Amino acid sequence: MIYYPSSIRKAIQSISKLPGIGEKTAERLVMHLLRAPRIDVEQLSRSILELKNSVRLCEQCFGLSDAETCGICSNPARDPQLVCVVEQPADMVSIEKSGAFSGRYHILGGALSPINGVGPDDIRIRELMARIPQQNIREVILATSTTVEGESTAAFIADRLTDSPAIVTRIASGVPVGGDLKYIDQVTLKRALEGRHAVQSK
Amino acid sequence: MIYYPSSIRKAIQSISKLPGIGEKTAERLVMHLLRAPRIDVEQLSRSILELKNSVRLCEQCFGLSDAETCGICSNPARDPQLVCVVEQPADMVSIEKSGAFSGRYHILGGALSPINGVGPDDIRIRELMARIPQQNIREVILATSTTVEGESTAAFIADRLTDSPAIVTRIASGVPVGGDLKYIDQVTLKRALEGRHAVQSK
Repeated sequence: MIYYPSSIRKAIQSISKLPGIGEKTAERLVMHLLRAPRIDVEQLSRSILELKNSVRLCEQCFGLSDAETCGICSNPARDPQLVCVVEQPADMVSIEKSGAFSGRYHILGGALSPINGVGPDDIRIRELMARIPQQNIREVILATSTTVEGESTAAFIADRLTDSPAIVTRIASGVPVGGDLKYIDQVTLKRALEGRHAVQSK
Repeated sequence: MIYYPSSIRKAIQSISKLPGIGEKTAERLVMHLLRAPRIDVEQLSRSILELKNSVRLCEQCFGLSDAETCGICSNPARDPQLVCVVEQPADMVSIEKSGAFSGRYHILGGALSPINGVGPDDIRIRELMARIPQQNIREVILATSTTVEGESTAAFIADRLTDSPAIVTRIASGVPVGGDLKYIDQVTLKRALEGRHAVQSK
């Protein structure tokens, strides 16, 4: 590192702070940037700064948004009475990519985890409770992860919604598509068997 | 990509233009930046812009520098009469990391490559010729790569320097340290044999 002029050293240091990028990769990226057209480098620099300045949370679903309300919550084609509850914005993106969901979202911002000090007041459960009567929500799909934290978060929310008029559902657990049964863990197989469904109606 | 607000989309696009970084990695980095402290993100953005604004070529050796003359050329402890000729700034950094060289450098900015239209006037050979009498250079070490282009560049420069008072040397080729002979290619082995040296003086 001492072999570089200070501005290069600083750039290598900043870039190597990113997850999964070590000093070697940062060096390579900096060498690339030095050769790259000025306009591309300026655009990169600006777009990174813009992230912090313009991205905020949607006031409806708490997903990532450029405006007060995100593109999904302000889209009249999305069913406002069907809400999918996820832990993180990235989970919402995964579901969107599947193209299988046409309702709206509620991003909790985490999962219950007593061991890490995350309790019901630290994630957006209260906000979800408030949304249900306000927006006359018909069905709440609990799409938290199938980890211990995600499962207990789903169980906790389901419990809080027992008296609610909304239907509460949980995404299915089972063998992933393309999964080879001999490599699937036993808990998943147990869930897959429990969740079996008829293929022919007799 | 359409699942993200536009500022996130732009950042993902800019970051995924970097070499070795695909859209998936760019998404992951953007998610990290959104969670990272504002000061770190601002520093990253600034250091990238700084690269373009403050890095230039040293007017002596054409290495990367923040000032008119780079840290090596302006260091009186470095032998000014011993010059190591390399293709790229990154090659200079590699030699510096080895700690085996105490002279100065001359960065050609490439290697001769007729097939790519790179001739003697496209790399800094003329500048090297001018430096030799000006700085009273005693030895020119040709440390271009051992590729076809690097070898022919070294041969070309050596030829141009036949009448020069400076000694012209070429870095040794041979088996890399830690190399297992059975995996070394035949050309390298031939060079290693040709370049053999006595281990005991008899």
